[in-house]
Amino acid sequence: MLTQAIHDYQQRVDAQLRLRIASLDDSAPRLKAAMTHGALLGGKRIRPFLVYSIGQLLGAPLARLDAAAAAIECIHAYSLIHDDLPAMDDDELRRGQPTVHIAFDEATAILAGDALQTLAFEIVTETLDGVSAGQQLAMVKALARASGYRGMCGGQAIDLGSTGKAVSLEALTQLHNLKTGALIRCAVELAIIVAEPPAADASALLQFADAIGLAFQVQDDILDIVASTEELGKPQGSDTEANKSTFPKLLGLAGAQATAAELIQDALSALAKLPYNSQLIADFARYIIARRI
Amino acid sequence: MLTQAIHDYQQRVDAQLRLRIASLDDSAPRLKAAMTHGALLGGKRIRPFLVYSIGQLLGAPLARLDAAAAAIECIHAYSLIHDDLPAMDDDELRRGQPTVHIAFDEATAILAGDALQTLAFEIVTETLDGVSAGQQLAMVKALARASGYRGMCGGQAIDLGSTGKAVSLEALTQLHNLKTGALIRCAVELAIIVAEPPAADASALLQFADAIGLAFQVQDDILDIVASTEELGKPQGSDTEANKSTFPKLLGLAGAQATAAELIQDALSALAKLPYNSQLIADFARYIIARRI
Repeated sequence: MLTQAIHDYQQRVDAQLRLRIASLDDSAPRLKAAMTHGALLGGKRIRPFLVYSIGQLLGAPLARLDAAAAAIECIHAYSLIHDDLPAMDDDELRRGQPTVHIAFDEATAILAGDALQTLAFEIVTETLDGVSAGQQLAMVKALARASGYRGMCGGQAIDLGSTGKAVSLEALTQLHNLKTGALIRCAVELAIIVAEPPAADASALLQFADAIGLAFQVQDDILDIVASTEELGKPQGSDTEANKSTFPKLLGLAGAQATAAELIQDALSALAKLPYNSQLIADFARYIIARRI
Repeated sequence: MLTQAIHDYQQRVDAQLRLRIASLDDSAPRLKAAMTHGALLGGKRIRPFLVYSIGQLLGAPLARLDAAAAAIECIHAYSLIHDDLPAMDDDELRRGQPTVHIAFDEATAILAGDALQTLAFEIVTETLDGVSAGQQLAMVKALARASGYRGMCGGQAIDLGSTGKAVSLEALTQLHNLKTGALIRCAVELAIIVAEPPAADASALLQFADAIGLAFQVQDDILDIVASTEELGKPQGSDTEANKSTFPKLLGLAGAQATAAELIQDALSALAKLPYNSQLIADFARYIIARRI
């Protein structure tokens, strides 16, 4: 059921992204191709999955969730394009494919990232049946907050600044809460904005989001050690190579695995408070630490 | 009167930008400093001037225009930071000061641009007395459209792709309409969204915006030839150096000057249709081709 749902939502958000990028005119074909490459390189589509699955859990029709799912994936895609640049992480491969600055060039990669960020905000302003201007504005606000200085960008800056330095567990947790946690929480926020559940349910879902957001990053650090280059689609051990602080480095491999498992327990406890059948997202939480890619 | 107004609006938008960037927490101090450097490097603040002057002309109180003015300047500032990067125009000086990647480093400059773009969208979602969610959403939409693929980013991509190539006058005009015209038009759109004038007045103001947007670029190309390095705050003749297509190259210097003057006439004719005292923005239009910086 989970595998099918991941696949279906992945297909759905890819179609939404493809539609919106394809509908741009052809005045800057190289930029358009780079945006397509960066946004449609595959990937698990974790954030759209959360928008769709939690939105549906709360009773929102899928069509009402498309814009939010596509927008948040545009933000994620833009961040990957910029993170891969030579001045940042200098990665040539992502998901087994050449990164945007390798497939195109650096200038085009910078612009493709910029334009995908803008596109995210354009998408959430699309008129949507059953969604008010106030709700859309709340989505813009949530997306901006999660992706800017107080979220993803700030986290990436802290990450760059701490490479090669000893970092405390608290600082590493804060870094990842900003760098990846904020956008994962935002996916859940977007679903909540669209579906408008009672406040107590919203609060439980946000606890769920915070727990899986951090678990996701802990597991990423673990996979960098235990998975193969082929599974990762990028060189195995690249965090160690880049002298990055990671959870296994601070806690040991077993300690990091225990932390991830605890976070998933927290996530499942939050779900237990909900008056809905949350089987699918509970399975998803378990999948986060079971996955190999 | 114009000089005073330019100065006053410049001070006002700078205070608005400073306030918003200073209010960010200090978790990523280097990024915050780079954002401040990039956003507060001085400059004419053309776009905020248009938001404020046209908004006031239409009867909007200044306080209701602050968010729009600050947001559009964040977009402009982010675009300059990214355009100056080594992979793009590779400029080390802007307004006589080191560019962000020189004063900081490339990775920080990329992130500062990214975070300033996000901040622009965050600012337009601020709650504002007398401005509805629908109006704010319209501002997000206008800003996104003008700065993304269909506007500034697309124009920059076309510009990069045409360096060193022969470009027709039509293509050069299209390029600049996207690269700089779209955001200048957007400044006027934001004032219109806030102040809600009758449709005929809005239409005349947008004609005005389109004419001065192009005139501004033609004059920039002229200044690259006739002004000194000191006046420009960057090396004189850098367009010729970079083998860029310019209006003087296609039309001759006198031809470009005649085109700029005609565009200003078009702008003034548009203003003549308005039932307001538009002296200030008429002077501003004349200033565009009289300026040396």
